[in-house]
Amino acid sequence: MDILDIISKKKDNKELSREEMEFAYCGYLKGSVPDYQMSSLLMATCINGMSFDETLDLTDIMLKSGKILDTSEIKGVQVDKHSTGGVGDKTSMIIGPIIASLGLKMGKLSGRGLGFTGGTIDKLESIPGFRVALTSEEFLHDLNKVGFVECEQTPEFTPLDKVIYNLRSVTGTVESIPLIASSIMSKKLAVGAKYILIDLKVGEGALIKNKKDAVTLANIMIEIGKRYDKTVVPVLTDMDMPLGDNIGNSLEVLEALDVLKGKYGNLRDLCIELSSVLYSKSMGVNLDAARREVTDVLDNGLAYRKFLEFVKNQGGDIEKIGVAKYLKQVKSDRDGILKKISAYKIGVLSVHLGGGREKKGDAINYGVGIVLNKHIGDDIKIGDVLCYTYQDDEKNYEKEALEAFTIVK
Amino acid sequence: MDILDIISKKKDNKELSREEMEFAYCGYLKGSVPDYQMSSLLMATCINGMSFDETLDLTDIMLKSGKILDTSEIKGVQVDKHSTGGVGDKTSMIIGPIIASLGLKMGKLSGRGLGFTGGTIDKLESIPGFRVALTSEEFLHDLNKVGFVECEQTPEFTPLDKVIYNLRSVTGTVESIPLIASSIMSKKLAVGAKYILIDLKVGEGALIKNKKDAVTLANIMIEIGKRYDKTVVPVLTDMDMPLGDNIGNSLEVLEALDVLKGKYGNLRDLCIELSSVLYSKSMGVNLDAARREVTDVLDNGLAYRKFLEFVKNQGGDIEKIGVAKYLKQVKSDRDGILKKISAYKIGVLSVHLGGGREKKGDAINYGVGIVLNKHIGDDIKIGDVLCYTYQDDEKNYEKEALEAFTIVK
Repeated sequence: MDILDIISKKKDNKELSREEMEFAYCGYLKGSVPDYQMSSLLMATCINGMSFDETLDLTDIMLKSGKILDTSEIKGVQVDKHSTGGVGDKTSMIIGPIIASLGLKMGKLSGRGLGFTGGTIDKLESIPGFRVALTSEEFLHDLNKVGFVECEQTPEFTPLDKVIYNLRSVTGTVESIPLIASSIMSKKLAVGAKYILIDLKVGEGALIKNKKDAVTLANIMIEIGKRYDKTVVPVLTDMDMPLGDNIGNSLEVLEALDVLKGKYGNLRDLCIELSSVLYSKSMGVNLDAARREVTDVLDNGLAYRKFLEFVKNQGGDIEKIGVAKYLKQVKSDRDGILKKISAYKIGVLSVHLGGGREKKGDAINYGVGIVLNKHIGDDIKIGDVLCYTYQDDEKNYEKEALEAFTIVK
Repeated sequence: MDILDIISKKKDNKELSREEMEFAYCGYLKGSVPDYQMSSLLMATCINGMSFDETLDLTDIMLKSGKILDTSEIKGVQVDKHSTGGVGDKTSMIIGPIIASLGLKMGKLSGRGLGFTGGTIDKLESIPGFRVALTSEEFLHDLNKVGFVECEQTPEFTPLDKVIYNLRSVTGTVESIPLIASSIMSKKLAVGAKYILIDLKVGEGALIKNKKDAVTLANIMIEIGKRYDKTVVPVLTDMDMPLGDNIGNSLEVLEALDVLKGKYGNLRDLCIELSSVLYSKSMGVNLDAARREVTDVLDNGLAYRKFLEFVKNQGGDIEKIGVAKYLKQVKSDRDGILKKISAYKIGVLSVHLGGGREKKGDAINYGVGIVLNKHIGDDIKIGDVLCYTYQDDEKNYEKEALEAFTIVK
């Protein structure tokens, strides 16, 4: 087999066989196929797409490139949850405790933030003492004990996905539905949950820009799941504006805590919806009954106490969480109606404040971020505070922050 | 400017500006854009194509990446000739002397062979003593003196084309009409000839597989030429079977000599045709008159003596050219009509015999090769010699050789 023949075949929009895909992708992981050949193949794949069989093959090749968790010791129904990423997305810190309070087992491997989107592992690390690196044994033990565990993705799981994703991020080949599907599904299959909730973010601030692509992606993931006897539960959610009011690592943990303590709003509504869909599917109860049970554990404090148990179990001290030194107001320079808050621009501002990474390995400042003070549709007067910036330097970010808000007459 | 934005733009089939192309391509030459990003951009370019303006921009960027020959000292009409490569193509060793005998100046920079196609520089080097490395001063001086010079392409001319071509050859991105056009034209424009004959090989054994693509490529090159006040003269020729009877470096020089000494056949016919078209265009005489003059210098020995002068001028001793030690017959194992001789398979056999390179920098054996003994349409009996292999080892290549011949009842 010749890698150039395989690349040319994909360039000519022909379907690759399982053997050809193994030759190319496993060869890349082993080092026999260099970066420049893989990026050429990835670009051809981005433009020409992949058949369902190819997508399934790539998922399987990625899954089998590493360890697959032995979940036979997990007691009860194992579920998982994945979000395709967004700005201000702290839902897993709320849904995990809700789901565990209802008796299910949610064990999640998560990633760090890159660019304008955050990562749950960074958010959890903003809690002093919180351990994000667990062994497989700890993961299984804690999952049985607490019902909710979230730790860092380790290289022993789907190593091929990791190297391919890194290459995609520097070669303009991220936006490809089959590549996104196989990346997400291989990681989820490696952890073994029977029910997998996929929160598909759609919009300007997300990887998937339109609803049509989101539906296509959702259907591919459902089909892949079926082949492994897993139920994939996709939910499409808007990501045109940031999720909730707080953006930034410790600020997002604090907002998750607020919701678990009873704060109302869009974020609570979304978490109830996602939790209910997952609970309904995995326990076979109807959606209305699921909603009632989910709302109960939020309102009676069970989910809140589960969150505290989860944090304590992984060594974190929630009392010691801190925010940045300076709090500055960003005031409107005009009157009008708040029409849009750009998730992308708020995400980039958060990186500039020090809360995110320009490139992998950059250090981040957990305490900085943005807290929104106005919502879409609000009537705005000159001088109204649109948001606050939490910062550890004394720079003026007001101009950049104002650009995220569209106010119209 | 961001290379990822440029790659994504090309991926989305949008036109790149001159500035964007300079950022990407000059960045690659300087090393600020790595291989894996350039190969991703090249694949997107292969699949989505390039507008004419983009093709012109890339040609110009490549041209200006290196030295441009100062041709002001060349006396008379300067012409050039390029073949898109084929198996057994020794036409420039015949056309060069013909054209120089007619008073024109043909100075050519040529390349070495790679894979199943040969390169004129390797063929000339099979002549003991022949110097393929000339300085610009020697090139200009010898061109004025002899009228025909052929030497190795040096890195001072179009260095960008060289690095891009090397990357294309290992990333499945060779077959792209605009990339081929800009590569050929930048090299030809750097040498400065007013009239440029392009022998576009079309067929199984060639880079361009069908006539439609060849016409498209020809038209793009004509248009590029116009922008630099150059006349591009494209001629489409078949490359479904090897050109002439001999394949292999010294064997091809010997066949060129035979044609210059008066041997009839397809190769002579093609060389007369190509020379006549070039002479007609560059001197403004009609094609019939041109054909007569070309045939005259072949028949009266002028072109033959010009070839000897050319070889001697560059230090070669034509008397000392040698062929391999063993001559083996390849006999037909069936009766029938010879329907096809695969240029590709004969080219690969030549590499296996030691006459070509699997990869750049491999040493080659000048004396080995194949001499065809039968032609398309010939009536074949079992035991007839289809071809001879010239080899320096005693391996049996008969089976591989037989596969190149299609004999039907």
